[in-house]
Parts: sequence; structure tokens; C-alpha cells
Amino acid sequence: MDAIVLMDNLWVAIGAILVFFMIGGFILLEAGSTRMKNAGHIAGKTVFTAGLGTLVFWAVGYGFTYGDGNGFIGLSNFFYGDASTVEEGLTPAVDFSFQVMFAVVSLTIAFGGFAERAKLAAYVIFAILFTALVYPVVAHWIWGGGWLADHGKQDFAGSTVVHLTGAMAALAATLILKPRIGKYNKDGSSNNIAGHNQVYTALGVLILWVGWFGFNGASTFGVADGFLGFVILNTQLAAAAGAIAAMFTSWVVTGKADVPTTLNGALAGLVAITASCGFVAPWAAVVIGLVGGIMVVFSMKFFDKAKIDDPISALSVHGTVGVWGTLSNGLFALPALSTDIDWGQAGLFYGGGFHQLGVQALGVVASGAYAFVVAFILLKIMDKVMGGLRVTEEEEIMGLDMSEHGSYGYPEQFEASSTSVKTESPSVNLS
Amino acid sequence: MDAIVLMDNLWVAIGAILVFFMIGGFILLEAGSTRMKNAGHIAGKTVFTAGLGTLVFWAVGYGFTYGDGNGFIGLSNFFYGDASTVEEGLTPAVDFSFQVMFAVVSLTIAFGGFAERAKLAAYVIFAILFTALVYPVVAHWIWGGGWLADHGKQDFAGSTVVHLTGAMAALAATLILKPRIGKYNKDGSSNNIAGHNQVYTALGVLILWVGWFGFNGASTFGVADGFLGFVILNTQLAAAAGAIAAMFTSWVVTGKADVPTTLNGALAGLVAITASCGFVAPWAAVVIGLVGGIMVVFSMKFFDKAKIDDPISALSVHGTVGVWGTLSNGLFALPALSTDIDWGQAGLFYGGGFHQLGVQALGVVASGAYAFVVAFILLKIMDKVMGGLRVTEEEEIMGLDMSEHGSYGYPEQFEASSTSVKTESPSVNLS
Amino acid sequence: MDAIVLMDNLWVAIGAILVFFMIGGFILLEAGSTRMKNAGHIAGKTVFTAGLGTLVFWAVGYGFTYGDGNGFIGLSNFFYGDASTVEEGLTPAVDFSFQVMFAVVSLTIAFGGFAERAKLAAYVIFAILFTALVYPVVAHWIWGGGWLADHGKQDFAGSTVVHLTGAMAALAATLILKPRIGKYNKDGSSNNIAGHNQVYTALGVLILWVGWFGFNGASTFGVADGFLGFVILNTQLAAAAGAIAAMFTSWVVTGKADVPTTLNGALAGLVAITASCGFVAPWAAVVIGLVGGIMVVFSMKFFDKAKIDDPISALSVHGTVGVWGTLSNGLFALPALSTDIDWGQAGLFYGGGFHQLGVQALGVVASGAYAFVVAFILLKIMDKVMGGLRVTEEEEIMGLDMSEHGSYGYPEQFEASSTSVKTESPSVNLS
Repeated sequence: MDAIVLMDNLWVAIGAILVFFMIGGFILLEAGSTRMKNAGHIAGKTVFTAGLGTLVFWAVGYGFTYGDGNGFIGLSNFFYGDASTVEEGLTPAVDFSFQVMFAVVSLTIAFGGFAERAKLAAYVIFAILFTALVYPVVAHWIWGGGWLADHGKQDFAGSTVVHLTGAMAALAATLILKPRIGKYNKDGSSNNIAGHNQVYTALGVLILWVGWFGFNGASTFGVADGFLGFVILNTQLAAAAGAIAAMFTSWVVTGKADVPTTLNGALAGLVAITASCGFVAPWAAVVIGLVGGIMVVFSMKFFDKAKIDDPISALSVHGTVGVWGTLSNGLFALPALSTDIDWGQAGLFYGGGFHQLGVQALGVVASGAYAFVVAFILLKIMDKVMGGLRVTEEEEIMGLDMSEHGSYGYPEQFEASSTSVKTESPSVNLS
Repeated sequence: MDAIVLMDNLWVAIGAILVFFMIGGFILLEAGSTRMKNAGHIAGKTVFTAGLGTLVFWAVGYGFTYGDGNGFIGLSNFFYGDASTVEEGLTPAVDFSFQVMFAVVSLTIAFGGFAERAKLAAYVIFAILFTALVYPVVAHWIWGGGWLADHGKQDFAGSTVVHLTGAMAALAATLILKPRIGKYNKDGSSNNIAGHNQVYTALGVLILWVGWFGFNGASTFGVADGFLGFVILNTQLAAAAGAIAAMFTSWVVTGKADVPTTLNGALAGLVAITASCGFVAPWAAVVIGLVGGIMVVFSMKFFDKAKIDDPISALSVHGTVGVWGTLSNGLFALPALSTDIDWGQAGLFYGGGFHQLGVQALGVVASGAYAFVVAFILLKIMDKVMGGLRVTEEEEIMGLDMSEHGSYGYPEQFEASSTSVKTESPSVNLS
Repeated sequence: MDAIVLMDNLWVAIGAILVFFMIGGFILLEAGSTRMKNAGHIAGKTVFTAGLGTLVFWAVGYGFTYGDGNGFIGLSNFFYGDASTVEEGLTPAVDFSFQVMFAVVSLTIAFGGFAERAKLAAYVIFAILFTALVYPVVAHWIWGGGWLADHGKQDFAGSTVVHLTGAMAALAATLILKPRIGKYNKDGSSNNIAGHNQVYTALGVLILWVGWFGFNGASTFGVADGFLGFVILNTQLAAAAGAIAAMFTSWVVTGKADVPTTLNGALAGLVAITASCGFVAPWAAVVIGLVGGIMVVFSMKFFDKAKIDDPISALSVHGTVGVWGTLSNGLFALPALSTDIDWGQAGLFYGGGFHQLGVQALGVVASGAYAFVVAFILLKIMDKVMGGLRVTEEEEIMGLDMSEHGSYGYPEQFEASSTSVKTESPSVNLS
């Protein structure tokens, strides 16, 4: 191998490491956004499902995504079998290592819709089904040479493939699981069930932001033209704009600069730029991030009013903003910047007309519909077979740490007595 | 581009990612060093101001630092406009991505002086002013071809530019904001207001240490001669020496090996070596770190006695030790090690006489004075215009999580009742 | 230097950074697995001992490991003196930076055996002795051209050198220190002393997993053939398999999918694959990880029954599974995959017969015996000289944060009164 091909491999391998680090961000984001009684469960299941997703993607997911097959699905390269038919230049192992991390991130996003009420067994089974049957199909359509790729769908690092797919599965889960106990009152009003640790949430978002430099930056699949720097720059600007937009929007709308909303704004900026980070000018990255940050605030309000309980804001951050990120590419995409990147047509604002915007919209609708419908059907079947996806009311009140794992994540902050585990929201006595 | 130029770009881009990760270290360091009632605020504002600093540096900061201009300030390349006049070899995007992270780190250091008492609006406005008017000027003088660069000022990765500048702004803020309620007694004695989570502090320091390998290591701006390894080695030795020196100093002086002091020692070692990591021998890195670690202990005592309330020890770690780091370069700098690095004269101990030491001292005085005076004036103006930089006494007692953001960072550990929010330091009942 | 040599240096330097990040993982893993009253101590001592280990390895450890000497020990290159006799291609600084991180990780593993009861002074002294006299000898035998290297012992990234060595020292410490107060009852039954924060533990494991990509991946010492991708792939598969195997084993055996056990399973998969990550096929990595994950559950039960108190499960994760990892290489090692890697003979399942398995077993026995015996003798001497390695009963009950450092890691969660510090396991009042 010559030096530049080796460097391509090195950068994408480092990218894989950065993307996997995002799982650490999700541990903190999800645990911080939920209650103490579920914290050990949420942290533990995130590690566990990342492992399970890895093995399923190795067994079948990679083959369904990138194997030779048809426009709908790939059908070779199972179990890292003959994984030599990959993008020229990257070794099969580097390519696999990078791709498996994306599958695992999408899975983790999907589990946002399960938070604080699903049985552990539901996580186990859905991790297998999602990584085998949901994610790979959408990924094949767009990244594996499938029918949307043939139409010129642009999704640089996965606003659609990773974020929208995960969010649609989360939506299916949320609709089937129903809201958490205590979330909605009989009069239809909703209660805020605050996450227990904003330091976790903030650090989680920061770790996701750091990992996203690999997520987006290594989706160049190499170092040609130093183009990865441009992608990193756009990613930084959009994330920054998203955080600021969400904070000020929250400040104006509610009178307080809400911390979790601000943090979701940073993530919204990141999700929004993911489709376009290699295709748009820096000023456009700022605009895309700003709009994403504003949008996430209103989306969170919308789902709350619609009685769709979304503890981690996965539907707003990855879903609503995933759509915006995908569509905005059709508006802001430049004519080709780098000859080393596959490039579609310029966006509406650069003389490309409505063509690319239409392709992006088609991609959103088709991918979103597939992910939602298939996830919904799979979860409905699981619901029947498992006698419900949700823990009992008593278990939910006790918390999933105890019900699903037999020990509290914070044992010293909970009494061992049988009375205390009945307490819905144990709060520390300050006197 | 040839392979080596591509590799230079790759390494500096990775360096940018590592430097941004330091913001995660600051989230933990600052939150861990302060009280529970302010934790969500501190974590959230760190993410938010990193975003705001990014956009301001994009708009004007980068241009003031690196644009064509005069010895005092740069005056082109605003909004990433014609950012092509950068260091040969690095793409504009890589260069910008690396530089913006340094500006954001310096800003975060400055905010150490605001902790636990400043209004959120003060963070917003000062983030803009510091990133536009304070940091870029000092950075231009030393790194942007300004008048101190013409004198041969050496600051490999920013003991002066980043750390001292941030610390001087923190000092200005601390003097204007005055000590926290309860810090000093009427008889002039001081109370220790312990930070609430030493695990956060320790992990924060470790993350900063990791990020510092990019901060220092990628300030080589490339991979020539594998010189980055030498910089990483010196960084590791100095950080290690700083931690050990501070722990033993604390143990000897106070009878106990204080944990936060030990952790500040590691940071002191890192700050101290930052100016010299590419200019000194490994044994000198150990000495520089050791002295930094000892110095930080006494500096913390000094500020405490001087009634300057410094919750995060920013003044000692980044200020006092930033001065030491800058000056020590004039003592220990070797004759040129690498032809690929701009190199000043050897230090006093290597036959260079007092010249380099004098240049370093000039740099400290000029940069420190500029940063302090301008920050002080800006904050004084803000103080007038905003009707005070500080929250009310009631709000400070309640905590900034609630007063500035409307929700606690740890809601389950605080009662919602109006009585508990009056409690200054809510402590958990152990009985 | 040509581009590929520069790239080798770059990758190994990045590997060093990733390995050092593992110390952050250990901070969280150890603090999370122990009690609140010791959390500040555990976090602080991890940073401090990493620093001390760094300086000792610089002074003598590196020379004992890699210096010219004999089959037993190296005897040159002290204080980074004439560190030019290193592996061709890597600069001395890059090589040193990478190696020092491994020594520090091994030391941190050893301290797992000290948790919650050893005096701070014991950490200080043993950090020096272990890094000077225990780790370097085993490392020299296997990696420094010593007698086990002559026999063809294979240990790609240190299942034996780093993990088993650390675990054997931990075992010696555990046996001398005796179990924690309250761990065993008079009737011989044992109590579970739960760690206080499973979110820390989970994030710690995730950070270790991320760092392990550098630990294993950069043990290629370069980028040739893009082989690092293969190592990363095997690492990911084994970690995933370990987590799943441990969770299901725990679920089946105890009826609950225990979170700490699941997390230890991920670590077990990582430890197991460390010896073989560059020598085996991906399917074998899955098998090695699965077996490691199952084994760790029963090993934890074994030590618990044997009245060997192992708070962090260091003996099981790094010891038992370190042995399995080393031996499994003798079963699954492929004939040479890459001409760029030193390669022994194929394993039993690939026609190599029992030869490699025998060499691996010899390596385990010799290395394990050396590490255990020398650590035991050193600790026994320390025990005499220091008047005991263990804090007093009163101090242990009070917690090491207060006894060794004079302040709680979580001061707001502990009352300052003298009554509360007598409480063995302070629990928060939920009423």
C-alpha cells in the first residue's frame, strides 16, 4: 500500500474509535436525562446493547448493508466472510470497524424511545432485530449502492441513515410503550420529569460532539485534499450555532435559559449538519445549525403536547432535526468541492433547482417510513409474544435498576427497605 | 498534496479534536470544584460559551489574530472569508479548526473567575467580548506575527497566549465580582467552600491531561521528524511531576495529601510545560513541572489570604504557573532541536544569556497587562450597563441552577419546597 | 524520515494518548465500584500514582525493560539517557511515550487489590517498587528481548505483561491486606459491598474500551498493511462477546442480569483478546471474548467464596482472564498474517501442535509467579517497615477520603459531625 492509502486507513480507523466513543456520550446523556432509580440500568444496557449490536452487525447486518445483492438489500459478506468487496483502498477490517460503529449509534438512538419503562428482554430482542432488519436496509439504500443511491441521495455521514432511522424506531417504541407513569395528568396536562444529573447530560453532549468529528470527519473515507478539515470546521460551526439558538429560543420562549434544552440544541446542530458537512459552505453550516437549534425547542414542545413521551428528546433531536438536516442539503449543497467525494447536484440556492431537494425529500419519506413501519411491526409482534414490552407498574415505580438487574445504580442513595423502593421519586432530605 | 502535507493536516485536525475534548475536562473540573446547587449551570454554561466563542472567533476573532494587519492586530479573514493566507501546508479549515479550539479553552479558563456568582447574561456578553477583543490581540502579538513575535517571544502552545490571558481575565472578574457569600468571615479569616465531587475533578483533570497531548503535541503543526513524540513525552513528564510535587507539598505543609491540590498540581505541570514542551530536554520538563506543582500550592494559599476568591484555582493554575511556564523557557530552552520549528535563542542555562529570559518576561508583562486591563474595563462597563454582574444574594444562596436556568442540575437531591432552596449548602442526612 | 515511518510514529503517538485515556476509565471503574466515603481518595490516588509511575518508569523502569542487558533484565537507557537503541523507525520519544502508558496501566490494575483499606503511603511506596522492580522484569522477558521472547512467547499487547502482572500484584496485596470490614460474616458467608455508582462504572468501562483500541491497535507499532484495522476489529468483537456472555451467564445463574458483572464481561473480552488481537481470525476473537465473559462470572464467585476480597474484580478480570487470553493464543493463533509483525508458531487449532500452547503456558507460569512472589515480598517488607499497610479500623469505617486526605470526595453528602463519620455505610435518607 502506498502512503496515502495507509493514511486513509489510519484516519478511518481513528474515526471508528471516535464514533464508538459516542456510546460513552449516550451513556451520560441518557442517564443524566432520566431518574436515579433507572441510572444503572440505562448505563448498563447501553454498553450491553452496543456489544449485541456489534455481533449482530458482524453476523448479518454488514452483509445486508454492503453485500452484493439488489437495490433493496445486500446478500453476501456475512460473518465478515468474504468482506473484500469494499470501497477501494480501505481494508475490509477498517471499513467494517467504521461501519459497525454507525449501526451501534443508530441502535442507541432507537433505545431513547424505550427509556424508563421497557423490559430488559425487549432491549435484547430489539437490538437483534433492529441491527439485522431495520438499519441495514436503509443503510443499503443510501450507502450500500441501493435504489436511493441510484437517485443521487446525499447523506454525508447519516442524518437520514443513522439519526432518522434510529429516531423512527424510537417513535414506534414510544407509541407502543405509552408514556411513563406520572408524565400526563388526567386533565391532559403534562408534568416535567426532570433528568437527575445535568452534569452527566452536559458531559455526554460534549463527548458526542467530540465523537462527531470522527462520525462526520472520517466519512470522507480518507485524507485526500485535507478535506476532513473542512468537514470538521462545518461540524464545529453547526454545533455551536445549534447550542446558541436553542438557548436563546428557550430563554425567550420560557423566560429561562433551560440547560437540557441548550444541550439538545448542540446535538441538533450536529444532527442537522451530518448530512451536509462535506457539501456546504461554512456560513451555511451556521445557518443549518441555527435552524436546527430553534427547531428542536419547538419540536420538544410539540411532542410533549401530542402526549408522546420522549424522555431523551430522541424524536426531536434525531428525528425532526434529522429531517431538516437531510432536506437542508437540497437547499445549501454547493457544486462539487472535492473530486474525491461522490457528489450529487447543487442545492436550490446554488442553481441546482429543486432536483436535489426532491431527492432528499424522497429519501426522508422512504427511509423514515421503512424504519417506522418495520420497527412498529417488529415491536408489536414482540409485544404479543413477550406478553408486553413494558415492566409492571410496581416495577416502573421501583425503578428498573432493581426490577431488571437486582441492584440500584446508586445503592447508597436508596434505602434497602421494602418501603423505600415503593417511593416513586426518592429525593434526598436536605434538612 | 503530497503525503507528508496530508499527514500534517491529519495530525493538526486530530489535535483540534483533542483540544476540544478539554472542554469536557473543564466541565468536570469546574462542576466538581463547586457546589451542587450550581452544577447544572456550570456544566451547561461551559457548553454554551464554547459554542458562542466558536461563532465569535469565526466572525472576527480569527481575523483579528491571524489576518493581515499590523503589529498590534490582524484585520482580514473575517467570517472565514479569504482564509487562505495561513501557514503553508495546513489547509485554511484545519488551521481554523485548531485555532478556534485554543480560543475557546482560553475563554473557559477566564470563566473560572465568574464561578458561583455571576449572572448568565454576564457569561453571554463577556464570551463575545473576550473572544473578539482580548484573546485575539495577545494571540496576534505572539502567534499572529505581531510585535512580540518580532522580538522572538517563544510560547510553544500557549502558556502565555491561552493560559495567562484566560487567567488575567479571570482575575479581573474575580476582583469585580468580589468573593462568594460565606467565603470570608468578618475577622478576615477564610472558609473552605469545598467542591462537591472530587471524582468529577479527578476525571476532569485526566481529560484535560489527555487533551493536552493535542494542545501541545499538535502545536508542532505537523509530523516532521516525529517531533510530536518529543512534545508528548515532555508533556507527560511535566504533568506527572506537577501532580507529585503538589501532593507532597500539600502533605508536608498541611499534614494531609489534599486531593484537589494534587489535581491542581497535575494541571500546573501541564500549564508550566506548555510554553516549553518543544524547546527543552526531558529532565528540564520534570523540573519545570515540579516547580509548577510546588508553586501552585503556595499560590492558592496566597490568593486565599489576599481575599481573592478563586473557586476553580484558575488564577494559580493558569496565571501564576502560566508566568512560570513562560519564564522557565528563558532558562531551559535548548539550542534548536528541530529545523522544522521556529526557534528563538537558547535559555540562560544553555549559554543563551539573559536575552530569551528577558523576551519572555516582556511577553508576560505586556500580555498579562493587556488581558487584565482590557478585561477589567470591559467588565466594569458591563457592570454599569447591566446593573451589576452578580446575581442577588438570595439567588446566590438558592444557587444558579435555579436562579439562572429554572431547574436544579440534581433535582432529586433538592427538595422542591421553598424552604429548601433557601438552604445555602444542602447536605444529605446520613442518619 | 519517509512518509510511512512518520505515519508509524504518528499512530503510535496517538496510541499512547489513547492508552493514557484508560486511566480515566480506571478512575471511574474503581470509584464506581467502591463506596462514597472512599471516592475522592480513589479518584485522586489514581491520578497521583499515574504520575508517580511515569517518573519511576522514566528514571529506571524503561531501562530495566528495554535497555541492553541480559535475558532477565535490561540495564541501560535510564532517565531517557541514550534511548536511541529502540525499535527501528519509532523515535525514542514516541516509543517511550507509548511504553510508559502500559506501565502505568499495569500499576493501576495492581492497585485494584488495595482498594478501600490501604494507607496512602502504601500506594506511594508500592507505585515506586512495582514500576521499578515488578513490571519491567516481566516486560523485559517478553517484550524487551528477554528469555521468554527467545522462546517465542506471543503477547500482542499485554494479556500477560500488563494484565496478569498487575493482577498478580493485586492478589499479593489482597492476601496481605485481608478483606474489608464487613465483607465476611463470622459464619463464613459473604456480603455484597455494592459500588456506589454504576453510571461511573459503565462509563469507565466504555472509556477503557475506547482506550483499548490504542492499547491493542498501536501495538502494531505502525501502519503497515493497514493491519491496525484488523486488530481493532478483533478487539471490538471480543469486547462485545465478553459483555454479552457475562450478562447472560449472570442472568441464567443468578436470575438477574447484573450490571457490574456485564461490565466486567466487556473488560474480560478485552483482556482476553489482548494477547491475540493480531494473531487470530475474527470468529476466534468472538469465541475468545465469549469464553472470557463466561469465565469472569465464575471467577468472581470463586474469589468471593475463597474469602479473597476483590472490590474491583481485578483478580478475575485481569488475572483469570489474562491467563485465558494468553493461553488461547496457543489455541487459535493463525499462521503468519502479516510479514510486518513478529510471529510465533500457529496454534493448536491451526496445525501448530502443542508447541505454542506450551510456550504460552510457560509464560503465564513464569510471569505470574515472578509478579506474585516479588510483589508479595515487597509488600511484606513494607508491612513490617510501615507498621502495617492498612488504615485503622476507625479510619476504614470513616472512609479514606477523610482519613488519608482530610476531606470528603462528596462533602455535601456527608455531615461534618463526628457522629456521622462513624457510620460505616452512609446512606441517604429517602423519606
